[in-house]
Amino acid sequence: MFEDKVVHITKFVAPEIIFGLGALSQVGDSVLRLGARKVFVVTDEGVSSAGWVDTALDSLKEVGIEYECYSDSTSNPKDVEVASGVEAYRLAGCDAVLAVGGGSPIDVAKAVAAVASNGGRINDYEGVNRIIHPLPPMVVVPTTAGSGSEVSQFAMIVDTNRKVKMTIISKSLVPDIALIDPVVLQTKDAELTAVTGMDALSHAIEAYTSLAATPLTDVHAIEALQTIANNLRSSVASRTNLKAKSAMAMASLQAGLAFSNAILGATHAMTHQVDGLLDLHHGKTNAVLLPYVMEFNMIASTDKFVRIAEAFGECVRGMSSWAAAERAVHAVRRLTRDIGIPKNLTALGLNGSYIPQLVKSALNDACLITNPRDVEEEDLTEIFRKAL
Amino acid sequence: MFEDKVVHITKFVAPEIIFGLGALSQVGDSVLRLGARKVFVVTDEGVSSAGWVDTALDSLKEVGIEYECYSDSTSNPKDVEVASGVEAYRLAGCDAVLAVGGGSPIDVAKAVAAVASNGGRINDYEGVNRIIHPLPPMVVVPTTAGSGSEVSQFAMIVDTNRKVKMTIISKSLVPDIALIDPVVLQTKDAELTAVTGMDALSHAIEAYTSLAATPLTDVHAIEALQTIANNLRSSVASRTNLKAKSAMAMASLQAGLAFSNAILGATHAMTHQVDGLLDLHHGKTNAVLLPYVMEFNMIASTDKFVRIAEAFGECVRGMSSWAAAERAVHAVRRLTRDIGIPKNLTALGLNGSYIPQLVKSALNDACLITNPRDVEEEDLTEIFRKAL
Ligand SMILES: [Fe+2]
Ligand SMILES: [Fe+2]
Repeated sequence: MFEDKVVHITKFVAPEIIFGLGALSQVGDSVLRLGARKVFVVTDEGVSSAGWVDTALDSLKEVGIEYECYSDSTSNPKDVEVASGVEAYRLAGCDAVLAVGGGSPIDVAKAVAAVASNGGRINDYEGVNRIIHPLPPMVVVPTTAGSGSEVSQFAMIVDTNRKVKMTIISKSLVPDIALIDPVVLQTKDAELTAVTGMDALSHAIEAYTSLAATPLTDVHAIEALQTIANNLRSSVASRTNLKAKSAMAMASLQAGLAFSNAILGATHAMTHQVDGLLDLHHGKTNAVLLPYVMEFNMIASTDKFVRIAEAFGECVRGMSSWAAAERAVHAVRRLTRDIGIPKNLTALGLNGSYIPQLVKSALNDACLITNPRDVEEEDLTEIFRKAL
Repeated sequence: MFEDKVVHITKFVAPEIIFGLGALSQVGDSVLRLGARKVFVVTDEGVSSAGWVDTALDSLKEVGIEYECYSDSTSNPKDVEVASGVEAYRLAGCDAVLAVGGGSPIDVAKAVAAVASNGGRINDYEGVNRIIHPLPPMVVVPTTAGSGSEVSQFAMIVDTNRKVKMTIISKSLVPDIALIDPVVLQTKDAELTAVTGMDALSHAIEAYTSLAATPLTDVHAIEALQTIANNLRSSVASRTNLKAKSAMAMASLQAGLAFSNAILGATHAMTHQVDGLLDLHHGKTNAVLLPYVMEFNMIASTDKFVRIAEAFGECVRGMSSWAAAERAVHAVRRLTRDIGIPKNLTALGLNGSYIPQLVKSALNDACLITNPRDVEEEDLTEIFRKAL
């Protein structure tokens, strides 16, 4: 895998990772170990009602850590929610952050930590490496298998004025400790399992084919996509299949390590705009767009698409590399069909008249820079049209 | 790969990694970023005379970082050297540590950092997780492709009274930044390239077959051993083959990530004792013992040995899994022969009369705990005898 790469200087960052059944009960020890006294706990309603937040709070109490809970964030979290979070953090005199939730609460937690220690508004930090001062200690417990935010240097926050998702990328946004407990995945329904799983698959495929991919990210990307290919269907099929949940938690984690360091591509650049406009689940939009973007990107690195097809268990022996690469797209389409992903953007409620505006903002998305094939305005328009 | 595992709570730690041709010139920025003002630079004569230390010091000067150089450590570094290093560190008023060298200076740097911030002698910290207080910032630049110490939570220091290598394992020993520049490998001769490469291979194989292996460590172990299988010969063959040097640097790094988190096995447990007795290069002893330990371990996880054989490019199609697993041992033996590793322990200067004493101390080595097959005294005796 290494031989074919031109070597540049590349970087790789990961948090400390604690993974396994029952890991949630280590929240208290983890926060304590980072020297915190009062922790700001960001969560969401669904996770609270499932009882996972109580488990986390009990673990904090056991070690004598004080806390302040915050659960006012929405999916596709907004800049104004971050601002009110920061106010609550300061008012309560917190000195650390804990997120227990899906990608949205985790991103809010990261954004609150960034603004609490760096001042201003979260909008000031849009883009790459704009965060200067160190963040307070951060422990993150993901309750979905998809966002990868528990290990990534990304946070996505909606600018409510511009109605776009801001991409904030900084090494400081990598949590200190990522605590992954597959047990918590059992309280998610089939649809959420499907769309978060497709988000993880998008991370794996976009990181693997990214221009910034390295041998360190490739190994995690390939392992993630193979694990998703073998376990997402069974995880969607049953809430109690703990083997499938564990596999998907590990896949989401590995896809997160891959994309955090290799960045993403056109699928995410396009999805961010649709999500910002329609407030859809990020994973659902990704799932619809991914095969169309793969078809477009295929000529940039046919070998990598052949490898993706193989990881999906497609039989490509004796095929031309071009035909074998096409099997990767076929395998992804087949998977989305099996787990009930809507057919196209129209089914998601997108009206074609928005395409010019979506294309315009997608062209400014940081994720486009690492897409393996050059992308022009007319290319994005064409992909959106095909996916409509 | 995930499916066959019983899930326990596992942990994974890695430093920030900066990798690539010319990365050495980022030493100054890296140390500065960690908030250091005066850095304790641990190095060795070979690296100094090759000019790499000057490059590092120039980079420190450029950003206005003061430094104190220390190059009095030997290979298989000793507790007394650590003590004198700590004295020099304190006397010079340093607040950070930089290592530029092979595994030995890196381990000295880690040990000095541990004692400088935790007090006492390095011998007080032998074993697992005995280091309590946080260490000063640490940047590590490996100049060999083998030890993996740049990313690991291990340091090996010789107890001069007991004449044994102490294994010190602690998360605190993971450097803050690992800076890997394949260019520096070009000044190492064929023999050092061979034995350090075999050390990396031992890490990959022992981590992959370890009882503490996880999907996160497996991906790095397999990638490392495949890269070593494809590049160690050509790296030994030519000092200037930068493609081979880059591949070996990446393989050593990935093998380091794997064994740091999955720990090792009987090869290292045995090698540590021989090194402590005869002051040999760790990689050379590992290289001699590895195939014998593989033969012994094979029945513990035949599947994994088949996978190792495949990673070496052995053709195992149509073979029984037992026969296929044996090809892994064959492939390692063939590699050691091709790169000029001595045939046996006798050729390394070991006298058979030492075996009972070596067995006794090997039984107490922390690396034995994760060996895939239970090891009794008579097993170790038998392996030593075969390898004599
Ligand atoms: Fe995503
Ligand atoms: Fe070693």
